[in-house]
Amino acid sequence: MTYRVDLNCDMGESFGAYTMGNDEEILDYVTSANIACGFHAGDPTTMRKTVKLALEKNVGIGAHPGLQDLVGFGRRNIALSPQEAYDLVVYQIGALSGFVKAEGGQLQHVKAHGALYNMAVKDAALSEAIAEAVYKIDPELVLFGLSGSEIVKAGKNIGLRTANEVFSDRTYQRDGSLTPRSQSNALITDSKLAIDQVVRMVKENKVTTVDQTDALLQADTICIHGDGIHALDFAVQISKSLKESNINIVKVQEFV
Amino acid sequence: MTYRVDLNCDMGESFGAYTMGNDEEILDYVTSANIACGFHAGDPTTMRKTVKLALEKNVGIGAHPGLQDLVGFGRRNIALSPQEAYDLVVYQIGALSGFVKAEGGQLQHVKAHGALYNMAVKDAALSEAIAEAVYKIDPELVLFGLSGSEIVKAGKNIGLRTANEVFSDRTYQRDGSLTPRSQSNALITDSKLAIDQVVRMVKENKVTTVDQTDALLQADTICIHGDGIHALDFAVQISKSLKESNINIVKVQEFV
Amino acid sequence: MTYRVDLNCDMGESFGAYTMGNDEEILDYVTSANIACGFHAGDPTTMRKTVKLALEKNVGIGAHPGLQDLVGFGRRNIALSPQEAYDLVVYQIGALSGFVKAEGGQLQHVKAHGALYNMAVKDAALSEAIAEAVYKIDPELVLFGLSGSEIVKAGKNIGLRTANEVFSDRTYQRDGSLTPRSQSNALITDSKLAIDQVVRMVKENKVTTVDQTDALLQADTICIHGDGIHALDFAVQISKSLKESNINIVKVQEFV
Amino acid sequence: MTYRVDLNCDMGESFGAYTMGNDEEILDYVTSANIACGFHAGDPTTMRKTVKLALEKNVGIGAHPGLQDLVGFGRRNIALSPQEAYDLVVYQIGALSGFVKAEGGQLQHVKAHGALYNMAVKDAALSEAIAEAVYKIDPELVLFGLSGSEIVKAGKNIGLRTANEVFSDRTYQRDGSLTPRSQSNALITDSKLAIDQVVRMVKENKVTTVDQTDALLQADTICIHGDGIHALDFAVQISKSLKESNINIVKVQEFV
Repeated sequence: MTYRVDLNCDMGESFGAYTMGNDEEILDYVTSANIACGFHAGDPTTMRKTVKLALEKNVGIGAHPGLQDLVGFGRRNIALSPQEAYDLVVYQIGALSGFVKAEGGQLQHVKAHGALYNMAVKDAALSEAIAEAVYKIDPELVLFGLSGSEIVKAGKNIGLRTANEVFSDRTYQRDGSLTPRSQSNALITDSKLAIDQVVRMVKENKVTTVDQTDALLQADTICIHGDGIHALDFAVQISKSLKESNINIVKVQEFV
Repeated sequence: MTYRVDLNCDMGESFGAYTMGNDEEILDYVTSANIACGFHAGDPTTMRKTVKLALEKNVGIGAHPGLQDLVGFGRRNIALSPQEAYDLVVYQIGALSGFVKAEGGQLQHVKAHGALYNMAVKDAALSEAIAEAVYKIDPELVLFGLSGSEIVKAGKNIGLRTANEVFSDRTYQRDGSLTPRSQSNALITDSKLAIDQVVRMVKENKVTTVDQTDALLQADTICIHGDGIHALDFAVQISKSLKESNINIVKVQEFV
Repeated sequence: MTYRVDLNCDMGESFGAYTMGNDEEILDYVTSANIACGFHAGDPTTMRKTVKLALEKNVGIGAHPGLQDLVGFGRRNIALSPQEAYDLVVYQIGALSGFVKAEGGQLQHVKAHGALYNMAVKDAALSEAIAEAVYKIDPELVLFGLSGSEIVKAGKNIGLRTANEVFSDRTYQRDGSLTPRSQSNALITDSKLAIDQVVRMVKENKVTTVDQTDALLQADTICIHGDGIHALDFAVQISKSLKESNINIVKVQEFV
Repeated sequence: MTYRVDLNCDMGESFGAYTMGNDEEILDYVTSANIACGFHAGDPTTMRKTVKLALEKNVGIGAHPGLQDLVGFGRRNIALSPQEAYDLVVYQIGALSGFVKAEGGQLQHVKAHGALYNMAVKDAALSEAIAEAVYKIDPELVLFGLSGSEIVKAGKNIGLRTANEVFSDRTYQRDGSLTPRSQSNALITDSKLAIDQVVRMVKENKVTTVDQTDALLQADTICIHGDGIHALDFAVQISKSLKESNINIVKVQEFV
């Protein structure tokens, strides 16, 4: 049997004079790019360049809207209302769409960033607001969300295609949620373990949790990280390992 | 003979807890709304509300991109490159388009704001960058620019419809440019004089300049201001006077 | 017996082209001004002007540091670490001190703004970070905090003078905390009730709570609001009523 | 004869998740650190850390105020008024002073950043505004400015100590001004030439200009750059070469 999965990576997180990530190289190994939209990272010039690169490399383009917290990189929870979330998601998808349109491309998906992504996991109202924003801009867009999260439910409910996302380098709790980064065992630093985890998730729809139980999940797309010194190595490795495990790496829009 | 002209006004310039302008009332008197896009003024929530209001009142919606200078309200020149201008115009048109699309409307036009508008008047490279940004997002958009300016030329050259803009409350120089605000005679504060000026501009394509000569111009759209305590009064008055002068007030997309 | 209390008001909340509040008029009625420092409101020019005005009217000057959330006016909780809170408080007190020093004045106090103030009420670690920031910049500063809050405790513990703050227009819970603004009975809109509440707080150290019990508190300084159309009227009224009730309105540094 | 010169470097230019420069290493080789204050780069956390490092290494601390243009790194001219410049310089010096005071140190100097520095070189009114801001915060501060510039004149006129700055890696015009970065010969990329240039500037008060004439200047402090892959190498090298040339590297406050 042949399996398939999408490989996504956050991109376009440079800002002005500040460079982050190895976008150009990583783009050779992923099928979906989540491009920052200027609120938590990114700026108009970076967005244009990143959209162009992704189109050249035939990678699916996603808007990656975040909270308006540049100094916190969108990683700190902000107590915003669902309406405010809707508004900033529409704004950021729109902004990225401008560049996609100007370059003659097509937006594939939307993935919320950082704290916005995490806050939505268990918050139905926030998830509905995000899903509505995506749907009203374009009902053909694919909404990414943590496998089993409220955001995936909200996406389905409103009529969007959704992609259940899993993480290679994060550990999971018994309930299928990610171990918070504040805990010491949140990250998987051993590449081999990380790859074994994703292969199992794709093939068996299961993950071994921190307390050694199995949690069920669905793995439509795997999140890999684009910054850090080993990012590129890991992208190469996971890409190779997935293929060796009989898992095709396919742009998400082709199968969800 | 019947004349026609568009009446445009800057809108959506509130920001967070700060309110500016009388958008809701002014929208009853104008045919085109230039909506701030978050760089010099405006925020996602204000943009959504303003787009909605404009659609309800059947007013043509325009993106009003400005320089990234919130504290300066986009009124201070920033020495940016044409490429940077292109990027921030694409970004802002995109962002506003998100709201227009989400509300089921259609974007009509683009008008640069403040210092970006003024810098482009005589700067061909900057004007070309702005026109290209507009064209690449949507070649059906109407580009607003000061009558006779480089921006109108750049719009025409690239294949956009353009709207020559005139000002009711600003005086003109011999060469058809606006008297800089730094000069004491830059503003026309007498409503009657302001209205006489625009009527003549629409009917005769002429304006009396500060040195009492005539300058030629074309008046497709008249800019009125939406803030200040007399803004609404003036909108009512100019609207009434134009009609009495046999000038129909018509959305710009219907005749350019 | 003669009582005394300080009257404080948030000020300098204008931003760029946006005006907020009636600072100049309100300054005639208060003894302490909490001046916004550019993160939730205010900008360098506004800060300079407001410091100057306060000095001219002999009103005690306070730094009013807030969360970095201009569009949310610093009213939305942001999950920041105590260290981040320390850093942004030092930054903002420093910035305001620059203007105070340049104008030849002296900083009197520090009062956290909005969500930062509210988050600190019951958060000891956050309160300690704020108190340490104040102390390390200048141990002579007075730290304002909700009467009975962690912030007042933290201030005392580190060796600062503190001012217990009470609110005229907010209702209180049985435990002496403010009724959250999200509840319908959070605000007192009747001026007479508001004034009666503060007079009792100053004279008896008690407030009638929403469930008709008495809560104990200490009233060193009363917060009044500077924006809204009735702000000035209320300032006049409360000032008059306090004097009639034999309560002197005195700058906080003179008695804490 | 023994000569002396100060060696200064821009520092604290990291922002949130973005890292820039090799501050910790470079601090071993310079005597004055110009610390970004949050407008063009830097943030409260970075400022605290950088101040602390500089104090540990006994390096003179300077405020490095810039234009409010984070995305442009303060390098793009903004047409601001002298009053606006005064305000943002007071604000930023104040903010950095907060951290210096909290850490028990003393501010040594102020150096304007990027476009603000360059705009002031030939603009007397802007220079006077900057000098006044520095003087009113603390008349003991040393004001850095391009050798022979209006900013040095303005500093002297108001009664400040000034430090004439020279650049090791920039070429000079016949009038003693820097060759604009837009020109191809603006930079000196050969370390040996760069070092020969500064040694001659310190010892002979002369520099060979791009048209092979000599321009007179005064070299109180040499600017070296802290970012780029060769920054540290160059700092080591210039430091060594100066000592070998009988030039002592001394904190500027000890001799101006």
